Amino acid sequence: MSETTRADGRAPGQLRPVTIERGWSAQAEGSALISFGGTRVLCTASFTPGVPRWLTGRGTGWVTAEYSMLPRSTNERMQRESVKGRIGGRTHEISRLIGRSLRAVVDTKALGENTLVIDCDVLQADGGTRTASITGAYVALVDAIAWGRERGHIARKAQPLKDSVAAVSVGIVGGVPMTDLAYVEDSRAETDMNVVVTGSGDFVEVQGTAEGAPFRRDELDALLDLALVSAGELREIQSAALGVDPRGEQ
Amino acid sequence: MSETTRADGRAPGQLRPVTIERGWSAQAEGSALISFGGTRVLCTASFTPGVPRWLTGRGTGWVTAEYSMLPRSTNERMQRESVKGRIGGRTHEISRLIGRSLRAVVDTKALGENTLVIDCDVLQADGGTRTASITGAYVALVDAIAWGRERGHIARKAQPLKDSVAAVSVGIVGGVPMTDLAYVEDSRAETDMNVVVTGSGDFVEVQGTAEGAPFRRDELDALLDLALVSAGELREIQSAALGVDPRGEQ
Amino acid sequence: MSETTRADGRAPGQLRPVTIERGWSAQAEGSALISFGGTRVLCTASFTPGVPRWLTGRGTGWVTAEYSMLPRSTNERMQRESVKGRIGGRTHEISRLIGRSLRAVVDTKALGENTLVIDCDVLQADGGTRTASITGAYVALVDAIAWGRERGHIARKAQPLKDSVAAVSVGIVGGVPMTDLAYVEDSRAETDMNVVVTGSGDFVEVQGTAEGAPFRRDELDALLDLALVSAGELREIQSAALGVDPRGEQ
Amino acid sequence: MSETTRADGRAPGQLRPVTIERGWSAQAEGSALISFGGTRVLCTASFTPGVPRWLTGRGTGWVTAEYSMLPRSTNERMQRESVKGRIGGRTHEISRLIGRSLRAVVDTKALGENTLVIDCDVLQADGGTRTASITGAYVALVDAIAWGRERGHIARKAQPLKDSVAAVSVGIVGGVPMTDLAYVEDSRAETDMNVVVTGSGDFVEVQGTAEGAPFRRDELDALLDLALVSAGELREIQSAALGVDPRGEQ
Amino acid sequence: MSETTRADGRAPGQLRPVTIERGWSAQAEGSALISFGGTRVLCTASFTPGVPRWLTGRGTGWVTAEYSMLPRSTNERMQRESVKGRIGGRTHEISRLIGRSLRAVVDTKALGENTLVIDCDVLQADGGTRTASITGAYVALVDAIAWGRERGHIARKAQPLKDSVAAVSVGIVGGVPMTDLAYVEDSRAETDMNVVVTGSGDFVEVQGTAEGAPFRRDELDALLDLALVSAGELREIQSAALGVDPRGEQ
Amino acid sequence: MSETTRADGRAPGQLRPVTIERGWSAQAEGSALISFGGTRVLCTASFTPGVPRWLTGRGTGWVTAEYSMLPRSTNERMQRESVKGRIGGRTHEISRLIGRSLRAVVDTKALGENTLVIDCDVLQADGGTRTASITGAYVALVDAIAWGRERGHIARKAQPLKDSVAAVSVGIVGGVPMTDLAYVEDSRAETDMNVVVTGSGDFVEVQGTAEGAPFRRDELDALLDLALVSAGELREIQSAALGVDPRGEQ
Repeated sequence: MSETTRADGRAPGQLRPVTIERGWSAQAEGSALISFGGTRVLCTASFTPGVPRWLTGRGTGWVTAEYSMLPRSTNERMQRESVKGRIGGRTHEISRLIGRSLRAVVDTKALGENTLVIDCDVLQADGGTRTASITGAYVALVDAIAWGRERGHIARKAQPLKDSVAAVSVGIVGGVPMTDLAYVEDSRAETDMNVVVTGSGDFVEVQGTAEGAPFRRDELDALLDLALVSAGELREIQSAALGVDPRGEQ
Repeated sequence: MSETTRADGRAPGQLRPVTIERGWSAQAEGSALISFGGTRVLCTASFTPGVPRWLTGRGTGWVTAEYSMLPRSTNERMQRESVKGRIGGRTHEISRLIGRSLRAVVDTKALGENTLVIDCDVLQADGGTRTASITGAYVALVDAIAWGRERGHIARKAQPLKDSVAAVSVGIVGGVPMTDLAYVEDSRAETDMNVVVTGSGDFVEVQGTAEGAPFRRDELDALLDLALVSAGELREIQSAALGVDPRGEQ
Repeated sequence: MSETTRADGRAPGQLRPVTIERGWSAQAEGSALISFGGTRVLCTASFTPGVPRWLTGRGTGWVTAEYSMLPRSTNERMQRESVKGRIGGRTHEISRLIGRSLRAVVDTKALGENTLVIDCDVLQADGGTRTASITGAYVALVDAIAWGRERGHIARKAQPLKDSVAAVSVGIVGGVPMTDLAYVEDSRAETDMNVVVTGSGDFVEVQGTAEGAPFRRDELDALLDLALVSAGELREIQSAALGVDPRGEQ
Repeated sequence: MSETTRADGRAPGQLRPVTIERGWSAQAEGSALISFGGTRVLCTASFTPGVPRWLTGRGTGWVTAEYSMLPRSTNERMQRESVKGRIGGRTHEISRLIGRSLRAVVDTKALGENTLVIDCDVLQADGGTRTASITGAYVALVDAIAWGRERGHIARKAQPLKDSVAAVSVGIVGGVPMTDLAYVEDSRAETDMNVVVTGSGDFVEVQGTAEGAPFRRDELDALLDLALVSAGELREIQSAALGVDPRGEQ
Repeated sequence: MSETTRADGRAPGQLRPVTIERGWSAQAEGSALISFGGTRVLCTASFTPGVPRWLTGRGTGWVTAEYSMLPRSTNERMQRESVKGRIGGRTHEISRLIGRSLRAVVDTKALGENTLVIDCDVLQADGGTRTASITGAYVALVDAIAWGRERGHIARKAQPLKDSVAAVSVGIVGGVPMTDLAYVEDSRAETDMNVVVTGSGDFVEVQGTAEGAPFRRDELDALLDLALVSAGELREIQSAALGVDPRGEQ
Repeated sequence: MSETTRADGRAPGQLRPVTIERGWSAQAEGSALISFGGTRVLCTASFTPGVPRWLTGRGTGWVTAEYSMLPRSTNERMQRESVKGRIGGRTHEISRLIGRSLRAVVDTKALGENTLVIDCDVLQADGGTRTASITGAYVALVDAIAWGRERGHIARKAQPLKDSVAAVSVGIVGGVPMTDLAYVEDSRAETDMNVVVTGSGDFVEVQGTAEGAPFRRDELDALLDLALVSAGELREIQSAALGVDPRGEQ
């Protein structure tokens, strides 16, 4: 419908341009600079043989994530959390979400006693920073696991990755369900939902929040439909960056 | 089905015994000691005329919430966050969830320039502490708003409460969708979902997380069905505690 | 004397109604919800086999305590210390006082290498929160020690408890020495004294503070007399809660 | 009695050599470097016209104190509290004690809207640091008040000082009541009491603690007797440092 | 001399390849992504009309800087300072150095009551992060000042920039003075010096440190000679990025 | 030149009166109370056999330093860093400078697995606190090393001290290069330089900062000349305090 054309000319179900620069960092075992339109996140995956002391000897690995925004990634400069001396609730929440999303596709037994720390640092923010982070973090994770396998830290036949994972934000703006909300859309949304989906199309996380009025069951259903389509497109882009056939073997 | 009888003998769709002691605290403007089985949360609502400086002059009120667990509310003693010197991610996340849930049913224009702080302190924990908190906080909120109205801080005809709100955790345990998970069930759940629902049956929050395997669309649907039924029952219990007819006027 | 009747009708030497709900918590090894009039404190005692690393191998146990007030236990809501990111001087002072008071009646050699952590969380405050905490903590402590003995962590014939302990605040208000000050009395007191007394009637702590004018030796003596009588009454109430004869064996 | 001669040859009721270097600091409005034997504390009193915002307009002054130990004031180096990022319970407790002790002899109405901050920094510690702090702080306070009066911040006929104040630690060591405990005595004491006394011989604070066994009423009385004598001697030394006749006008 | 060829083939007095992507950030008023070989720093300059309260009404502006490293900018992942809850000494030191270096070329009177905050976030680190930060920050600063002038926050004829500024690290490695040390060189250097130089060739900061043996006066002189040449080259690169003639007008 | 006579009558190249009270502290293994005019710093050196865990087994020692100012060492009282809950950038910077300066003259192999912690606490501040700290710290260090040698913690023939070290601040005030700036001079200086010099006359640190205008190469040279002369005089004073011939053996 012409009346639902969005500020940047997109159709309601259309993603912003998504680019992934795999291997952006020369230091990390895996890395990706991902853009969802004006949102740019540097994702690095650090592989360390061994696990924290409390996990030692159980034969399982450890995957965790940290999210942060540069102070001037946003339109107005924010105070650094290191300067404040504490991490805010929003940062904690997103770090935990990214960690859970990645762990959902990792078989920690197959990973063996190795640690993966994924850092997602937002260099520029224009909505969807957490979903871009998850989508980019997966690419960095794949490379860090390959690094660990090449050096013999992961057993030869082990398959630590059970599936791929991507995420998208969907929401109802002006009564219309839309995908991949830019900042101006997100701040006007009546309902905002972040959906994390595996390559197989199953859900890892569904987080829907009524920003203004509560939302109805049929609205929830429409948003989930949209999210599944967008997640499929993100999967293709991840696969292209990784040079694999998303329908075939990893 | 007999095979799905739960550890405490409940049917899959059955809530634990829920009790609400309204007005438990002699100090707060509104309060409720709520139990969901072995989970006991003291909810207090503090009403203060005026709003934080940055809101002054806009004619709108402010509603916020803080959640905390006593160190020995759990089976093993936890270190106090005041002793650690920082609040953990989980505490932040739940405090924010409670705050959003309550704000969804408050008309802050009608509230006027008044501040409501809701404290949910878990005295004993056995699963569902966040959902019990939201459900009890609503009762405390109603009384604190009545207190403000009686003293003339809220305009006579203003209706700051747009609806009631309650919350329940649902999850898939051993393949069976179940409502109001106790701790032992929650720790075994494949999928765990917290659902916040208004008295009218619309959603305020849906937070579903795959703990083990990702979940399918039909599983998500079954959990939402269950949550809507349980939320309706909690609404009845809230109304009974408040001495109002849940289908009539507040 | 009629002129010294107190706000709540008590005689100067009369305690407020004191109740002890032993075993209030289903999680802790020992617990008591104690009330001194409008003051209500939840005391839990956590028993853990083993001691902190620096004590290991010396054959002695460890007893410590933490005190805290819920934010809306008081007439005006206080900010949480976890939110402030640090514990205030008053909280530290009272936690240390409770710990010393309990250690005075515990034989840590007889306790063996076991740790007892006592938490005193003030749910509602109306003066005397530290003295109610000590008095209730003793009851929780007795039960936690019994728990440890039943499970074989404490040697069969060991007597870790040397005596009982209780505490009361006394003060001079309007020139009259009074016991168990309620908040309105405490804030008007010229001299305020917290006295911790064993079941045998000896002193563990005497903390007297001139709030306005310095106090004379004879005033100090009158307050100590009063405290010893009240402590004896508290001992009877503790014994009744524990179902033991305060004059006989523990 | 020969058997009660102390490690340093003192009689039980005898103070260690006490010296006061008044005006040690060229920066502070009042200052004193006080020694109680090997204990040395630098006390400075900072006079600032005006009071904190929350006191403004009430016509009363503000007196507060802070205590701290240099990391190598003790036999083993302690970590700095600035490095730890938080102030310990003991430091808080002593800072508050010093502040209360000084406020007990200051008429804040007569002081007018002026602020006095007393800093007591322990340069070398050998027992009795808190009592030396209070005794030295009084001397610094007198000079800072004189400074404020000379510059017209304090009204000409106002008498902000109601009395002098000094403090001494007393304790029972090996069954014998002793005054002004050195570190080796303090660590062996069965009972330890800090007593703050005005020039008129009344009590400002009495803080008695059973370190090992609880103490009896007659032991408490003996310690108070001893403290009053020692406090009188300290008063003479303060007066000599200040060049005033302790029995006459200030 | 062939024996002094460096690991990456550079001559002792040769800079690594330096690139400046001006305007990298779409959010900040001025920005530059600068590379000194493998070192990459994102510099943003935030322009805000107005100054902190304590400067208001004096007619002068405020310029400050913050430096930080991403956790995986280095070869081994570092813990975030926001997670540690405090900023380390090195970070503080470098933030202060960048701020002083920029203030040395800004006329804060001409800037007027405006605030400039420069953030230097190290995305990848290979030695010289502080000198790359200063050099890139100058470019971001120029653009942010232009932004402020265009919007009328800076007076038309005001010249807030007195000169340009650039920085380089020099050091003695294996007895040979070298410029722009890479990480492997820096860690082997006997003497390490950071030199901040204006476009006119005067010094803003000289910070020389003996890492191993103390250094002689003639060694110091040789390092300063080298630094002045390199700073001149950096000035050319800054000018090219800004599209100005370094010898002419700004 | 008469026109360059300084506020306190000194010639430009003249140090303030410098005194060193060696062994001021009875607790520390080495100590010195050093004065540079009105600046007074208590330096203590704590010797502990053993090194931090991460250094164990390498056969080398550890030397570190901490600097702090008493709150009323300055003309206006500063807030304590322990109360603020964090250490400021300036404190960190100076602590690190002192540590590096001392390590430059210590052979940690010869020291063996022993730890030296030097604390420099400023009791009174009038400019040059960091240079007085380094100069005094060296004296404390010498005594602490002697202590360790006497007790057999340092091998008999080992020479942990390679040289002596002293520091002085120099600056250009009103166009004139001057040594050992007092606070009033320091706050007016156009250029300020701290120079750390060994007994042999080589540099350990050179830290020059343009406070107002950038400085020229010839000004830098004049300041270094001055610093070398003053450092030589300080070396004589250190030697006198230590009772050694500065030109002979240590």
